[in-house]
Amino acid sequence: MADRRLAGPVRIVGTGLLGTSIGLALTERGVDVSLADTSPSSVALAVDYGAGRRAAEGDNPELVIVCVPPDVTASVVASELAAFPEALVTDVASVKAGPLAELVAAGADVSRYIGSHPMAGRERSGAISARADIFLGRPWVIAGHDGISYRRAAAVEQLALDLGAIPIEMTVEEHDRNVALVSHVPQVVASLLATRLGSATDGAVSLAGQGLRDTTRIASSDPELWVQILSANSDAVVEVLHRYRADLDGVIAALEAPDARGSRRTIAEALAAGNTGVARIPGKHGQSARFSQLVVIVDDKPGELARLLTEIGEAGINMEDLRLEHSPGAQIGLAEISVVPEAEDRLAAELTARGWRISELSA
Amino acid sequence: MADRRLAGPVRIVGTGLLGTSIGLALTERGVDVSLADTSPSSVALAVDYGAGRRAAEGDNPELVIVCVPPDVTASVVASELAAFPEALVTDVASVKAGPLAELVAAGADVSRYIGSHPMAGRERSGAISARADIFLGRPWVIAGHDGISYRRAAAVEQLALDLGAIPIEMTVEEHDRNVALVSHVPQVVASLLATRLGSATDGAVSLAGQGLRDTTRIASSDPELWVQILSANSDAVVEVLHRYRADLDGVIAALEAPDARGSRRTIAEALAAGNTGVARIPGKHGQSARFSQLVVIVDDKPGELARLLTEIGEAGINMEDLRLEHSPGAQIGLAEISVVPEAEDRLAAELTARGWRISELSA
Repeated sequence: MADRRLAGPVRIVGTGLLGTSIGLALTERGVDVSLADTSPSSVALAVDYGAGRRAAEGDNPELVIVCVPPDVTASVVASELAAFPEALVTDVASVKAGPLAELVAAGADVSRYIGSHPMAGRERSGAISARADIFLGRPWVIAGHDGISYRRAAAVEQLALDLGAIPIEMTVEEHDRNVALVSHVPQVVASLLATRLGSATDGAVSLAGQGLRDTTRIASSDPELWVQILSANSDAVVEVLHRYRADLDGVIAALEAPDARGSRRTIAEALAAGNTGVARIPGKHGQSARFSQLVVIVDDKPGELARLLTEIGEAGINMEDLRLEHSPGAQIGLAEISVVPEAEDRLAAELTARGWRISELSA
Repeated sequence: MADRRLAGPVRIVGTGLLGTSIGLALTERGVDVSLADTSPSSVALAVDYGAGRRAAEGDNPELVIVCVPPDVTASVVASELAAFPEALVTDVASVKAGPLAELVAAGADVSRYIGSHPMAGRERSGAISARADIFLGRPWVIAGHDGISYRRAAAVEQLALDLGAIPIEMTVEEHDRNVALVSHVPQVVASLLATRLGSATDGAVSLAGQGLRDTTRIASSDPELWVQILSANSDAVVEVLHRYRADLDGVIAALEAPDARGSRRTIAEALAAGNTGVARIPGKHGQSARFSQLVVIVDDKPGELARLLTEIGEAGINMEDLRLEHSPGAQIGLAEISVVPEAEDRLAAELTARGWRISELSA
């Protein structure tokens, strides 16, 4: 629907990773983007990157996008609402209830404000990491409230669509509870687990497998940003962490007396509950159906994996996912290929016929 | 060193995932493998799979490999030592100190016993999941003790090498502490985190990103096996979990009063300690050097990823790792290519010249 795209002009306040990325994407689409930041050098960098032009006297934006840290989001939104009395204002902070409450308490005109949250965070930050494509295929929460009309808010949904994201509507409270569960608590858990490795021996880390790598990967995130996110959503995060700690205490107590009556049952039930929980996570195509996996042995030299994927393509089979297993010290890699269950047998036959060594891992 | 390979005969007791997999691998190499299990139907299945022959009167194994659950490992090792007074006996259980202590206490001849642990666990179990290649490139711990001579234990190291694994020697106590840290505690943490998703709304799980997927993936592991592993290594696991809980308590207390003096510092330090810890995990080639990453946009249709990897190969660049990002509902995928830092600029130039849309993610 090309006739429904945002036409602009758009003003972006805050030229970090998200602000600069949005500016790049909108500029690519021909929108007039003006950029502002408390740091003149940050604006200069974003302008150099092609994210828009420097904001100027007389700018009259239709849409203002506030992309500043959570701590200062509400106050910046309030001044933008006051400075541009015709504009719709949104923000992209990872927390939504606090800023809205602050704005209402301050008497801001929230009939022109609706918060949003593109789920496109990264382990890197700053304009230097900005790219126009980081929103592609990612959820973008539109956090509605009763003070703004459906029609007035439409431009924010259009913004998400223009940037290739998938708009998802929910209330600010739902948003904050949801991201506490699927993003903020996992960050805390991963950071605390990775912390245990700080004093690990070389012998211990030499045994690290894919499980440890996966469970700790996001522990490399930026502490400065995350301390703000966690502090701003502390109520929702603490609520989940209390339940998590209660379960943890149960497992610790059981492991302190593993031969006591009921201990093994407690541990087994904790593990089984984890099975149930992980099955709730949707797959690549937004469904929880499981794919079948084949593991293929690939020599660790240029071209081998490409040859494998070429031959899968020649067989007319669509690969749903691909995971390479790390093999410290080994000269081979293991490529785990996910396909729809119906394609599994044919893929195994095709690859075997072409001489690939294959392990069928599907249960 | 073909002349140093195990010649057999080898007896395998316990025909689950590991026992059957070892049997398949040794049989492929021409070793005479005899199989025993308390379940006759399990042995029959393993024989059908080609993992060896049924054990018989008069068998005289040089090496006995006990592949039974941790709970019964020591008693089975003891009876094997008694039944085959010339044989070297090993086991593959995920815990090592307890079984050795039990054997010594029972007066078993531990001059012929050395425990081992192939780090090749999977989220699936049973002979039905067995494959000869699951040990390729994985660490295989040889858990030495003072009661056995270096020469007597050599066959177990040769077993690991024959199966393509990387032997790593450590004491039973070192092993148990190390796997508590890098395997057992991550399992508990992932299971408890995934448990929180059991009651999540559809709206919450629709926001799930790669971070949540990674942190919870191993929560799908088999509860029955893991309750034995955790119980058998409870001392070492509890020690790590106590430290983990102390850190967790600190973060919860800080988040309960995020505006109190020192709270933000506590949270920031927890996140920074996670940065330090995750940096300790070795990369694919057994080193902690970080690779540079390029993210390339790939249409979600057969052949596109193969074409990308073919062109990377044509450029003569060795890909160190590949990660596909899930894009729920989107028709594109993001391929994160890891290369040595020196190759990054050239790869970006080559791919851009060939028309790929690319995002340089390296900081």
